[in-house]
Amino acid sequence: MRNRIGRQTLLFRQPPQIISSAAIVSQMEAAGPLGEFFDTVMPEDTWGEESWEKAERKMFISSVHCALSKLGMQPEALDCLLGGDLLNQLISANYAARELNAPFLGLYSACSTMTESLLLGSVLLDGGYANHVACVATSHFCTAERQYRLPLEMGGQNPPTAQRTVTAAGCTVLCAEGEANARVYHTLCITHGTIGRVVDLGITDAANMGAAMAPAAADTLATHLKDTGRALSDYDLVVTGDLGSFGSTMFRELCAHKGLALGERHLDCGNAIFDPNTQNVDCGGSGCGCSAAVLNGYLLKRMEAGDFKRAIIMATGALLSPTATMQSDSIPGIAHAVVLERRSV
Amino acid sequence: MRNRIGRQTLLFRQPPQIISSAAIVSQMEAAGPLGEFFDTVMPEDTWGEESWEKAERKMFISSVHCALSKLGMQPEALDCLLGGDLLNQLISANYAARELNAPFLGLYSACSTMTESLLLGSVLLDGGYANHVACVATSHFCTAERQYRLPLEMGGQNPPTAQRTVTAAGCTVLCAEGEANARVYHTLCITHGTIGRVVDLGITDAANMGAAMAPAAADTLATHLKDTGRALSDYDLVVTGDLGSFGSTMFRELCAHKGLALGERHLDCGNAIFDPNTQNVDCGGSGCGCSAAVLNGYLLKRMEAGDFKRAIIMATGALLSPTATMQSDSIPGIAHAVVLERRSV
Repeated sequence: MRNRIGRQTLLFRQPPQIISSAAIVSQMEAAGPLGEFFDTVMPEDTWGEESWEKAERKMFISSVHCALSKLGMQPEALDCLLGGDLLNQLISANYAARELNAPFLGLYSACSTMTESLLLGSVLLDGGYANHVACVATSHFCTAERQYRLPLEMGGQNPPTAQRTVTAAGCTVLCAEGEANARVYHTLCITHGTIGRVVDLGITDAANMGAAMAPAAADTLATHLKDTGRALSDYDLVVTGDLGSFGSTMFRELCAHKGLALGERHLDCGNAIFDPNTQNVDCGGSGCGCSAAVLNGYLLKRMEAGDFKRAIIMATGALLSPTATMQSDSIPGIAHAVVLERRSV
Repeated sequence: MRNRIGRQTLLFRQPPQIISSAAIVSQMEAAGPLGEFFDTVMPEDTWGEESWEKAERKMFISSVHCALSKLGMQPEALDCLLGGDLLNQLISANYAARELNAPFLGLYSACSTMTESLLLGSVLLDGGYANHVACVATSHFCTAERQYRLPLEMGGQNPPTAQRTVTAAGCTVLCAEGEANARVYHTLCITHGTIGRVVDLGITDAANMGAAMAPAAADTLATHLKDTGRALSDYDLVVTGDLGSFGSTMFRELCAHKGLALGERHLDCGNAIFDPNTQNVDCGGSGCGCSAAVLNGYLLKRMEAGDFKRAIIMATGALLSPTATMQSDSIPGIAHAVVLERRSV
């Protein structure tokens, strides 16, 4: 296992390069603190389609086109498309893959899909199985509410621990080290991936996803540091996907119990994407589009600008299932991580 | 791309070894022509659990335990567990991964999950990212009918093109080339993987999955042969997942149109698992457990015995979604392939 370190971590010796990205959001996300960083803002939630589901599919497709267009590339040039969404049978991703016509690997790990996708995409590149891959995740507030909770038309009310599923799609284009290419980002690469475990502390409240995911995030972070022999101080930024305000507090406490004092270096995409004072989002944003949009819209630009040198990104997934919940199961979580590094050209 | 050949095919230069497998089925599959090859037969469809869903989860877990027990291995020794199932949010796989406590990658490509899992598992091993992985897929007749069509309690009738979702789980344990190990199979390895594309010829009938999948299988086979420069005669066996009798006829015709005369070397797991004369299964078996059980119960044993030297296995997935169907979408298909080879020790 020449490229494996410790229990769960993969080492990319020829670190895949991040060469482009795109993020597409709805009006709500565009009105938040990171609004200026997103590529495309949908005029309204159906984006001219007949249904929210078809709008979500369009977001997936458009995010790939947008990221590739910055490179002058066509989808046919992709050696693999990897991604997923929150909808049953991954209908956003699968129907999008039909249109994009690239070899496609469908992935599901709830809101941890963006990093599962980056991790496996990096394996394909570092291992010499591909030269260009696109990694994508998407979610939509209206489709997610209908599927996981209540149709919006019913006008249900949220408890204060609820989070708002972000309507967004994010796409990262990776290429193998040393490939000559047009590129939007000149300095960014992925050096490690840590495969998550399914962790379950017994949360049963579908309106408290942050609490369901926080244990998995803490587990993955602690394992990653143990596997790599690194300290928290080796990272400028520890990014979680969509724990929200309640889940973030829990995450920091769980980390503290493991001897990890996060201090100022923790950023949660679910906390960052909305303004809690002016936007009515309870505990923040969620959904696999949340980390996808914040990463591909905001974080990569900040890293390329030199604001952060090394970050660990853990998109966090709550494996919520209405069927399992009705059968009295708790909600397990999972968090896959990748390490992003800015290297001098 | 030192390990890539052509548009969609990966080359494993250090071919991952298949060292163990297990297949678990219900009474119905055990009564079929391949009954003697399966490891465990459930006494009844709930297997002592409170629900069919929990039985399916138990099947997933048990298939891993069964395959590992033949090696004297514990799940904790796995560097990665890869797999999925047909249920929304992959609840069989995700809850099973919680119990098995291994690093887990959740995959969804409908009934093509078994080969997606083998393909990505092989990438992890050949690329040096893991030494041991388990690849798993499962499906259950009763949970699939409830989710995709009608609850069984409604007593709906099937048209003649329908297939019966197989109640089965299959697990393959792979290890990196050259690793010294206890092993059930001494001669079997995976030499290539071909990533499928989403192909859609416009089928809209949820009771005709074979027709929805056949075009994807023909596409993957033709691409694989083109990528590798091989002819059909280089394979002793061309295996499809669960096209059933109608879909198999369509597959052979589509192949013939591409100049590929399959002759006697085609075997469809959906045709093989039930006896059409004595078991009332319309067009045959389906579900991702179908190819998983036939591969892990029957085919690997036949190959190890020397009956076949080289086989291409294409599990076939119909990306059927009740939501998409209600929104007038057709049913796309996908087929990921792996090449199994028997090598002298």
